[in-house]
Amino acid sequence: MFLAKVTGTVVATQKVASMVGQKLLTVDPLRIDEKDAGRLKPTGRTFVVVDTVGAGEGEIVLIVQGSSARYTPETKPLPVDAAIIGIIDTVQVGGQIIFKNEG
Amino acid sequence: MFLAKVTGTVVATQKVASMVGQKLLTVDPLRIDEKDAGRLKPTGRTFVVVDTVGAGEGEIVLIVQGSSARYTPETKPLPVDAAIIGIIDTVQVGGQIIFKNEG
Amino acid sequence: MFLAKVTGTVVATQKVASMVGQKLLTVDPLRIDEKDAGRLKPTGRTFVVVDTVGAGEGEIVLIVQGSSARYTPETKPLPVDAAIIGIIDTVQVGGQIIFKNEG
Amino acid sequence: MFLAKVTGTVVATQKVASMVGQKLLTVDPLRIDEKDAGRLKPTGRTFVVVDTVGAGEGEIVLIVQGSSARYTPETKPLPVDAAIIGIIDTVQVGGQIIFKNEG
Amino acid sequence: MFLAKVTGTVVATQKVASMVGQKLLTVDPLRIDEKDAGRLKPTGRTFVVVDTVGAGEGEIVLIVQGSSARYTPETKPLPVDAAIIGIIDTVQVGGQIIFKNEG
Repeated sequence: MFLAKVTGTVVATQKVASMVGQKLLTVDPLRIDEKDAGRLKPTGRTFVVVDTVGAGEGEIVLIVQGSSARYTPETKPLPVDAAIIGIIDTVQVGGQIIFKNEG
Repeated sequence: MFLAKVTGTVVATQKVASMVGQKLLTVDPLRIDEKDAGRLKPTGRTFVVVDTVGAGEGEIVLIVQGSSARYTPETKPLPVDAAIIGIIDTVQVGGQIIFKNEG
Repeated sequence: MFLAKVTGTVVATQKVASMVGQKLLTVDPLRIDEKDAGRLKPTGRTFVVVDTVGAGEGEIVLIVQGSSARYTPETKPLPVDAAIIGIIDTVQVGGQIIFKNEG
Repeated sequence: MFLAKVTGTVVATQKVASMVGQKLLTVDPLRIDEKDAGRLKPTGRTFVVVDTVGAGEGEIVLIVQGSSARYTPETKPLPVDAAIIGIIDTVQVGGQIIFKNEG
Repeated sequence: MFLAKVTGTVVATQKVASMVGQKLLTVDPLRIDEKDAGRLKPTGRTFVVVDTVGAGEGEIVLIVQGSSARYTPETKPLPVDAAIIGIIDTVQVGGQIIFKNEG
């Protein structure tokens, strides 16, 4: 899994029937900054994911990839390879909280 | 999943029997430009995908990869690892529409 | 899937029993040249793939990766993650044929 | 699989129901240093993994990715794509022990 | 699949029960040198793999990744994503043998 920031939304009207009604978001994966382990850094890549937990733009989320993205009640029969499975409250590195959801 | 632009078509006469009749397209993955979040930028990579939604060259599409590419009615029994599952209407980032299908 | 050029052959006598008799080839993935969309460019990587369609050195082929590589009659029970599923006749980009099998 | 160092912990209260109670850790993959095969070097990437063996921050662990991450008794039904499956005691390269758990 | 050189061994006492007794090796993937197609070149990455064919340090082996790594008699129920499925005898490129196991 990886941490990512929700950056936007995607709309596709013409699509595979099973995908109708699925919320699609763009996310940018994050990593712990090598030069400053006290912060998360965007990687600049863009994934499109389905949202199963009600995430919104700007939130830091947990993404699962591959066949495992189909292992939630909402995504089981879907042609999806990435899903948000949680909204991050805190990330703690070296005993220090480097991210806290100020909700 | 990822956003991509359809760039071309591929023809292969000699192939696995189950693939006969499948439309094969080349796509170039896109990402949100780090320096200008108001536009999508090609990554310069080349994937070959099957098309299940009637996409055409120049269109921006949604691609699913891996085993999940087999989770559409058309691709279920096929040896494919990437499929177009939607044609993108809009991509919205930071409250701004950065791509709109003028099709 | 991706386009690749067959570059060589691999022989392994001591191997998993189910792999006996399988032809193993090395391939170099290709992409459409960003600077000149009129040609395919090698990426310099080396994959080993099983061949199910009778491909030979120098040919441009279509490769499927991951669990989907097991979705052909020949590869179904095999421990393989990449297979040639077609021999490319033509690749067309922007209305122009950028590759044609002269075979 | 790959070697990685446990760098931190992740908390997500709002998540897929099946993930409740799962310990989530951040890890940084390691590789054998090309310039000095006598040491392991961080790659600077950040993965989030579930822990099935009781690993703690600072430990060197073995990570499995993809669908295989669901092949442990604890992770079988979970939407996870990476899991810790062992805590490393030693890594030996060229007859020399380059890592030893002093734990 | 990919070619790799076995570089070392990994020991983990505390691990998922099903992994007890499995030999774990570190490998460095190889590719055909772009500048000199007459030789194999290490990529400098480090994977951990299970060995099903009795490979030893220094040998050139064939690695399968992903769910397919579970498609051997020895690895079927295991949480592994990479396995050695053969020991390479020869690699031939452009009609020239660029690697030969002098075993």
